[in-house]
Amino acid sequence: MAAGGNGAAVDTKAAFTQIYYTLKEELLADPAFEFTDASHKWIDRMVDYTVLGGKCNRGLSVVDSYKLLKGADVLSEEEMFLACTLGWCIEWLQAFFLVLDDIMDESHTRRGQPCWFRVPQVGFIAVNDGIILRNHISRILKRHFKGKPYYADLLDLFNEVEFKTASGQLLDLITTHEGEKDLTKYNITVHRRIVQYKTAYYSFYLPVACALLLSGENLDNYGAVENILVEMGTYFQVQDDYLDCYGDPQFIGKIGTDIEDYKCSWLVVQALERADESQKRILFENYGKKDPACVAKVKNLYKELNLEGVFQDYENESYKKLIADIDAQPSIAVQNVLKSFLHKIYKRQK
Amino acid sequence: MAAGGNGAAVDTKAAFTQIYYTLKEELLADPAFEFTDASHKWIDRMVDYTVLGGKCNRGLSVVDSYKLLKGADVLSEEEMFLACTLGWCIEWLQAFFLVLDDIMDESHTRRGQPCWFRVPQVGFIAVNDGIILRNHISRILKRHFKGKPYYADLLDLFNEVEFKTASGQLLDLITTHEGEKDLTKYNITVHRRIVQYKTAYYSFYLPVACALLLSGENLDNYGAVENILVEMGTYFQVQDDYLDCYGDPQFIGKIGTDIEDYKCSWLVVQALERADESQKRILFENYGKKDPACVAKVKNLYKELNLEGVFQDYENESYKKLIADIDAQPSIAVQNVLKSFLHKIYKRQK
Repeated sequence: MAAGGNGAAVDTKAAFTQIYYTLKEELLADPAFEFTDASHKWIDRMVDYTVLGGKCNRGLSVVDSYKLLKGADVLSEEEMFLACTLGWCIEWLQAFFLVLDDIMDESHTRRGQPCWFRVPQVGFIAVNDGIILRNHISRILKRHFKGKPYYADLLDLFNEVEFKTASGQLLDLITTHEGEKDLTKYNITVHRRIVQYKTAYYSFYLPVACALLLSGENLDNYGAVENILVEMGTYFQVQDDYLDCYGDPQFIGKIGTDIEDYKCSWLVVQALERADESQKRILFENYGKKDPACVAKVKNLYKELNLEGVFQDYENESYKKLIADIDAQPSIAVQNVLKSFLHKIYKRQK
Repeated sequence: MAAGGNGAAVDTKAAFTQIYYTLKEELLADPAFEFTDASHKWIDRMVDYTVLGGKCNRGLSVVDSYKLLKGADVLSEEEMFLACTLGWCIEWLQAFFLVLDDIMDESHTRRGQPCWFRVPQVGFIAVNDGIILRNHISRILKRHFKGKPYYADLLDLFNEVEFKTASGQLLDLITTHEGEKDLTKYNITVHRRIVQYKTAYYSFYLPVACALLLSGENLDNYGAVENILVEMGTYFQVQDDYLDCYGDPQFIGKIGTDIEDYKCSWLVVQALERADESQKRILFENYGKKDPACVAKVKNLYKELNLEGVFQDYENESYKKLIADIDAQPSIAVQNVLKSFLHKIYKRQK
């Protein structure tokens, strides 16, 4: 059973990967633009560089969710192609966000290589490349879904999720960067709002919504499912904030710098809520500074306030609440989809 | 007649302007995002700063074209609102392109004020603001056109035009900036391709295509109209290139710097085609340099090669060809739309 499941996962991943090359070839032969040799080469390289290299969790979960919704272990070739194609659209959306976020954050590396805009000869052309990545989604959807009864809903879905994500990103940017550093702007409401909009919609809601549309469902009937997935996405991001400080760098594959970067992290929000006046002073004086001594003082305060325990309580509470909400769903297939997501992330270490 | 026509134009402009404020208010109350005070203020200011301040030629031409297609001087309130709304969507699209182009070109001013990304506290947040401007179009279209029989075609239209524009921008960026300066890359085919994709589709084809969709037409039947409008847009950009060097700076409102900026201008392409070996050497040595002496040498060569005469011939030929193509159109209403565009730009001095 475990081996069989694993075999299926390997097959799915292989089929998924193969479809990437089909989609890329189609984009490079798109009659809506007369490519020159140079622009053909550029797009080919740019798409490989920015879309590949991730774990494809979001994309693959469209296929997994669709199977669970249909209650079928095997899909027809056509169904498999369409599910993988929507999965890749999410991966393309992610690439679009990451290329532009890295420019805005002046980041250096992404997925173990230099950020695209740091590649020689790229620079600010990366802004336009981001736009092109977003446009690729529309081109892919038009080619493979135009004429389906849910085509307009699919376009609306990607548009609305993109809007929510960009709005969350704006909130993050103006909360973190605008004006003087001012920790009084950070609180759990602000944190929640940033996380929901910036991460949860596209990472958790979007894959399931794609699978629902593929299954012929009307998304208007799935408001509760949306809420549960956004809640799960919030929980996922809180874990991320926690692991940034408490995770094993070797295991999570990066060294956390949220404290140095003055991030509106769940940890600092919890610390601010629990700190007395003198502890608050420590936070205000040391949060957001590169100096390792300052970082150490913040981490020490986190320890004093027992944020590890606070996190464990949060994790247990979230889990219980999510399971209860999922069990209240009328459809067992939908329950299975939601539980499959939850069990992939519950108590994760990376 | 002239006064009446003018009065109607003034009325259209006033109605058009008023609808901007309605659309902005709707966006600022969009339930798809829970605005904070700070993000509400930010978007309000950003949209005013980036969308307003232009001449609105593209937007207004949706209304004008729609009237000509209907053969009616007066539209119902509903028709007027929808036509103006599509006009504003084009203005929003233009704002999105300009905000991002200015970042990529490291420009300083736009429409007589600092570029948005140069405004204090904005900086790279402007990249995300550009995305939000693009998203606003989807939000506006969904609110006012979802359910119309042509809704999916409208989304496809904006998507496809955006894709063509971004592809043209890529071509421009890699032709002009990639690797060493190399004038041998510039020729009339490359110039034409950049201009068509980067400017003509969104400036000329898009407004008419919007008016056609509003009139219930199927765009598949208007391939010839598309070609004529793209041709007109190409002619418009050639004028732009010409005026950059030969226009009156007081009249066109800016001092041209295409020679200094190493632009793939129609003029340098014509010069390269006509220059002998020694004249080519002058171009290779002086094109793309800030030094006024170099610029003067290039301008001198343009005079030697009589590019003013070459341009006049091009202008006359283009006009004749366009009129012939327009007259071959079966619909008089469509002919009127196309001629109205042509007469707005023919022999313009700014």
